[in-house]
Amino acid sequence: MSTEQGAEVNTAIQRTREEVARLHAELTRYGLVIWTGGNISGRVPGAELFVIKPSGVSYDELAPDNMILCDLDGNVVPGSPGSERSPSSDTAAHAYVYRNMPHIGGVVHTHSTYATAWAARGEAIPCVITGMADEFGGEIPVGPFAIIGDDSIGRGIVATLDGHRSRAVLMQNHGVFTIGRDAKDAVKAAVMCEDVARTIHIARQGGELIPIPQDKIDALFDRYQNVYGQKPQGELQ
Amino acid sequence: MSTEQGAEVNTAIQRTREEVARLHAELTRYGLVIWTGGNISGRVPGAELFVIKPSGVSYDELAPDNMILCDLDGNVVPGSPGSERSPSSDTAAHAYVYRNMPHIGGVVHTHSTYATAWAARGEAIPCVITGMADEFGGEIPVGPFAIIGDDSIGRGIVATLDGHRSRAVLMQNHGVFTIGRDAKDAVKAAVMCEDVARTIHIARQGGELIPIPQDKIDALFDRYQNVYGQKPQGELQ
Amino acid sequence: MSTEQGAEVNTAIQRTREEVARLHAELTRYGLVIWTGGNISGRVPGAELFVIKPSGVSYDELAPDNMILCDLDGNVVPGSPGSERSPSSDTAAHAYVYRNMPHIGGVVHTHSTYATAWAARGEAIPCVITGMADEFGGEIPVGPFAIIGDDSIGRGIVATLDGHRSRAVLMQNHGVFTIGRDAKDAVKAAVMCEDVARTIHIARQGGELIPIPQDKIDALFDRYQNVYGQKPQGELQ
Amino acid sequence: MSTEQGAEVNTAIQRTREEVARLHAELTRYGLVIWTGGNISGRVPGAELFVIKPSGVSYDELAPDNMILCDLDGNVVPGSPGSERSPSSDTAAHAYVYRNMPHIGGVVHTHSTYATAWAARGEAIPCVITGMADEFGGEIPVGPFAIIGDDSIGRGIVATLDGHRSRAVLMQNHGVFTIGRDAKDAVKAAVMCEDVARTIHIARQGGELIPIPQDKIDALFDRYQNVYGQKPQGELQ
Repeated sequence: MSTEQGAEVNTAIQRTREEVARLHAELTRYGLVIWTGGNISGRVPGAELFVIKPSGVSYDELAPDNMILCDLDGNVVPGSPGSERSPSSDTAAHAYVYRNMPHIGGVVHTHSTYATAWAARGEAIPCVITGMADEFGGEIPVGPFAIIGDDSIGRGIVATLDGHRSRAVLMQNHGVFTIGRDAKDAVKAAVMCEDVARTIHIARQGGELIPIPQDKIDALFDRYQNVYGQKPQGELQ
Repeated sequence: MSTEQGAEVNTAIQRTREEVARLHAELTRYGLVIWTGGNISGRVPGAELFVIKPSGVSYDELAPDNMILCDLDGNVVPGSPGSERSPSSDTAAHAYVYRNMPHIGGVVHTHSTYATAWAARGEAIPCVITGMADEFGGEIPVGPFAIIGDDSIGRGIVATLDGHRSRAVLMQNHGVFTIGRDAKDAVKAAVMCEDVARTIHIARQGGELIPIPQDKIDALFDRYQNVYGQKPQGELQ
Repeated sequence: MSTEQGAEVNTAIQRTREEVARLHAELTRYGLVIWTGGNISGRVPGAELFVIKPSGVSYDELAPDNMILCDLDGNVVPGSPGSERSPSSDTAAHAYVYRNMPHIGGVVHTHSTYATAWAARGEAIPCVITGMADEFGGEIPVGPFAIIGDDSIGRGIVATLDGHRSRAVLMQNHGVFTIGRDAKDAVKAAVMCEDVARTIHIARQGGELIPIPQDKIDALFDRYQNVYGQKPQGELQ
Repeated sequence: MSTEQGAEVNTAIQRTREEVARLHAELTRYGLVIWTGGNISGRVPGAELFVIKPSGVSYDELAPDNMILCDLDGNVVPGSPGSERSPSSDTAAHAYVYRNMPHIGGVVHTHSTYATAWAARGEAIPCVITGMADEFGGEIPVGPFAIIGDDSIGRGIVATLDGHRSRAVLMQNHGVFTIGRDAKDAVKAAVMCEDVARTIHIARQGGELIPIPQDKIDALFDRYQNVYGQKPQGELQ
């Protein structure tokens, strides 16, 4: 790598640290996490690296310099800022996603209440509101039961979401993982996933839901992915 | 238009920008919106114009100068502050209301949780609490299923609310639209609609509701519209 | 009245204004009210007067000087600070309580969500948690359906609570009124009432509740009224 | 006791006062308590003493110097800062735990909504989410009905939790007590207990829960107790 390339990568790492640290405040703002639970990671553009939250550190203490830099096998880059700590215990799952879904730039994991409630029943969230058709293009699917210790969580996420419209998967008896083109997009998916999990849970407590015809779901998803938001900023949000 | 009339309109536009920008904070205060969802608009008094939230911009960044000025067909006024952005993707629905309900000065749209839950079942909220009789004069009705792309959402709002006591409509499988004599009045209707949607949902989860006799609903609505609040300030709130 | 007595009353009025204005922040802190709903009043010690919230004024704007001073018939004292506004539309109900329950020094009214949900079914809240036995000494009763316009709300509150252990009454299809030896005590009752209304609603959604034997309820209520709290401060809280 | 030992104990007392005062903010942050309800205590390392919240004092007023120092029989240490007030009315229960569970350094008591709802039914919370297996190693058990006045609450806590993996017990018709190796650990257990109580309540409202096989619960609990968190800081969180 040339000196110039090295400087570009360092800048990209620093930006990703700042973005990932900052985005964790959205998880507390929307009540998706408690104590030290939950984690966000972001891929470093132009490098085989990602940045992730440290394990067991309070949300009040998160800052760019204690985010942890990992290679795509989930190993901490030795000597990098924050490397004296352990990365999130979900790092292997994040790394598996980055290795196997090259277009994905961000991963988020939470145990947000309503999404986890659907996961405890192993039940997909049906698409009965237009905002969910916009954002997820149909139901939010369930991934397999898998526990920490090998690649099984990462494999479950990728097997469920690869080729699926949804950017969120409910891991059975566990919680939710979301993916996105960058960390912010994955955080948005986590926020919206909990919102539809809550709304549709409450809706169903009150009686029978009205389904949305598939062609309407398709039309809404297509429009939202291609039209909505401020195009001059180049970001669909 | 005379110079003097032009100055008056400019003042009215600026006041409406300030009011519409400021009122968005009520949507987050009461938890009616997440991320960039939801929108408020306000008609400019004395002009064929209204001011609306830009599309896909965070609530933290909203300010008078990035609100968007539109004519009553929903077209952005070229060269006006904020006009480099797109207006809310619900602008056509707001414009339809202003064109067809001349006494309406404000429109609000949210996907607030409990109101949207009733909408996902296509079920009107029954009037079983006196505060709802005060504010809405009876049930909150359901509007048709309609998706973005033509006038169908606006038509559904107007067809449901024109001549109805309620200032809120639950658009089936979608969310809630509220109207008011100005933007603040429509925001109040959005806040109260979610409140009664939540209270009556919870009430019904616990058993059978006691109806309020129609003549009592009528008496409450009449009193509230004509007596309540600080009359010297000229505002019923 | 001597000059000295007049000065004492003025001091008592000012203290009551400050206390009543300040206590409204507890209603928003605990989410018991929205918009301009809800109201607190406090009797002025040593005088035939009480202080109450103005009608239709935002919680952000409440201050000692815009609280409204009324006599025990609910008439605003002419020329007193704030008297250019109307008092809360529930003033007649507060006044009725002060006239008919001389040991009561504070009254609170809210439409808090869970308490109002029980009220919409006309169902008393059963005493199945020890904290409720402490605070209310048994169930929280339901008062009659009554609407604004005469003394019927005040009569319903007094008829239900006079001689009852509970300081809270669920007015059918309406909301909750609480009373206390002073305004703070009535606010505490409003906060605790919503808390038990919520907890016991949720408990019952999950299955059958275990009753607490009456003699245990009696023992808990007796101890709490006589022992709990910081006695040197002379206040049971 | 030598002068040096006395100085060490004084330092330990002061640190415990600061920690216990500070931790109460976590109870309000996570909405586990209202008004003056709930309490935290912490054992003073190296002494037969513990520090606990005063009775009936507002959360806004808690500070190291008004925390109350008690011996292991629950008697206030005469002349110590704060000793002019009464300690929490639950002090006897805390003292009983410290006398009978020497490895326990912190105790927390709340009436948090969802945990108390399970307690009002006398129903243990089943372990159907992996985060609960991590933290509690299985179900959260129910303790006996017991009221203030003797050792019965303390005995119920110890009889239920001694030798149990769970650090939380749902006291029937009452609320939740949690224990931990220090006050912070007990607070974490209180926060996590309410979280799983809520999530699993909501999950079950929607249909049948999927059990987690016992061997998986065992594996998760073992890993979490031995591996998770930042080991260099010596704290599992």
